[in-house]
Amino acid sequence: MAKIRLFIDHPLAPGQPVPLDAAQAHYLSGVMRQKPGDVVSVFNGRDGEWSARIEQLAKRGGSLLAGARSAPQQDPPDLWLLFAPIKKARTDFIVEKAAELGCARILPVQTEFTNSERIRQDRLQAHAVEAAEQCGGTFVPQVADLAPLPRLLAGWDPARRILWADESLAGPAETLAGLPAGPWAILIGPEGGFSPAERAKLSDLPFVTRLSLGPRILRADTAAVAAIALWQAALGDWRGGGQQRIA
Amino acid sequence: MAKIRLFIDHPLAPGQPVPLDAAQAHYLSGVMRQKPGDVVSVFNGRDGEWSARIEQLAKRGGSLLAGARSAPQQDPPDLWLLFAPIKKARTDFIVEKAAELGCARILPVQTEFTNSERIRQDRLQAHAVEAAEQCGGTFVPQVADLAPLPRLLAGWDPARRILWADESLAGPAETLAGLPAGPWAILIGPEGGFSPAERAKLSDLPFVTRLSLGPRILRADTAAVAAIALWQAALGDWRGGGQQRIA
Repeated sequence: MAKIRLFIDHPLAPGQPVPLDAAQAHYLSGVMRQKPGDVVSVFNGRDGEWSARIEQLAKRGGSLLAGARSAPQQDPPDLWLLFAPIKKARTDFIVEKAAELGCARILPVQTEFTNSERIRQDRLQAHAVEAAEQCGGTFVPQVADLAPLPRLLAGWDPARRILWADESLAGPAETLAGLPAGPWAILIGPEGGFSPAERAKLSDLPFVTRLSLGPRILRADTAAVAAIALWQAALGDWRGGGQQRIA
Repeated sequence: MAKIRLFIDHPLAPGQPVPLDAAQAHYLSGVMRQKPGDVVSVFNGRDGEWSARIEQLAKRGGSLLAGARSAPQQDPPDLWLLFAPIKKARTDFIVEKAAELGCARILPVQTEFTNSERIRQDRLQAHAVEAAEQCGGTFVPQVADLAPLPRLLAGWDPARRILWADESLAGPAETLAGLPAGPWAILIGPEGGFSPAERAKLSDLPFVTRLSLGPRILRADTAAVAAIALWQAALGDWRGGGQQRIA
């Protein structure tokens, strides 16, 4: 019953023809049993959501015709997620959840205790696209290539504050109320945590704030979701007015 | 390098012999390559964590000898999670995350739009045990059997407030600051949300507070983790003092 939503990296405007590649055409005809004349929703990450009529569907591709805009573009707050890749399924999960919860960019970082030397950037990007398609989003966060943490920190714009989920701060967490708004990045370490050298480096940086996520040890994927939720509620677009007391 | 931690539902005291079943003995010998004389950590969910020496390991079982207590018992706050089971992997995930983030009980609920008629309670309970073993916890939340939401609500103790993650409240979320402490339950709906009748019923209950989780639609598993994190930071044992500004 959920409507079909498709991310297509192509300009969208009324009456604009939109080409489909083979995978998109197969998804619409083979998986979703759509046929020419049916109407689906498309978005390109910048122009909101549009209704589009299927014109052609073939093995090698197809085409849509964009109709009217059905929802405005909605960008997330300027929050980045930096995380050390872990096991495949949990890394996929982190990317999916960051896209759902509203991160603007996702940056896999290589730390001293990171196991993986490589990531499949294209596969992670596809997870971010799918999360936006499934969850009604009109924005898809860009997933960067794996970069060493020291290189990222060396070129860091100090105007973007870093919220470091520091697993050694095993204590009660703060609500984050009182921290300044503006661009932020959340930093989540690998399973083994950060090395002493990395900890010393991070502690020296004036734009880093440490965050504890409570007295229990969290897996990296849990810590990522929890930290993003707390940030969104305190400094992002979850702020204000949504809690309602009944009766 | 992480120490071996085993949940064993047996009394623990200094010098107490602790029996192992076949699965536990296989895990220690076959998977973790332990042998008699090696020392592991055990917990039973009520007496903290204990070091224990392996005495015997065989195909059909084995035994440990409890030594000294290595960590105190740490119970989570009195927070329950009520959720409508979804696809298998995501249901497993919700149970794992609820155990990690600190819920006292996990109650799968059947709603009008819930697909599953049954759950594997034993499998879900095993996920909660594994999460505690992996994450250094000494408490394992009990996973209840699937129960219809109307029956749960009919017998509900009004002293336990319900925080209802209401997907129709698509707006900014509140920080939850200002809500009273005490026993709570978080309620997460199925993929299709709650039915109009369920919504009306929930809205009528004086102990229900609605919570919005921001402007984007979240999957049920994401909503569960986000709501628990927000509750823990505002009303649970993540409160106060953990955020530290560096420099």
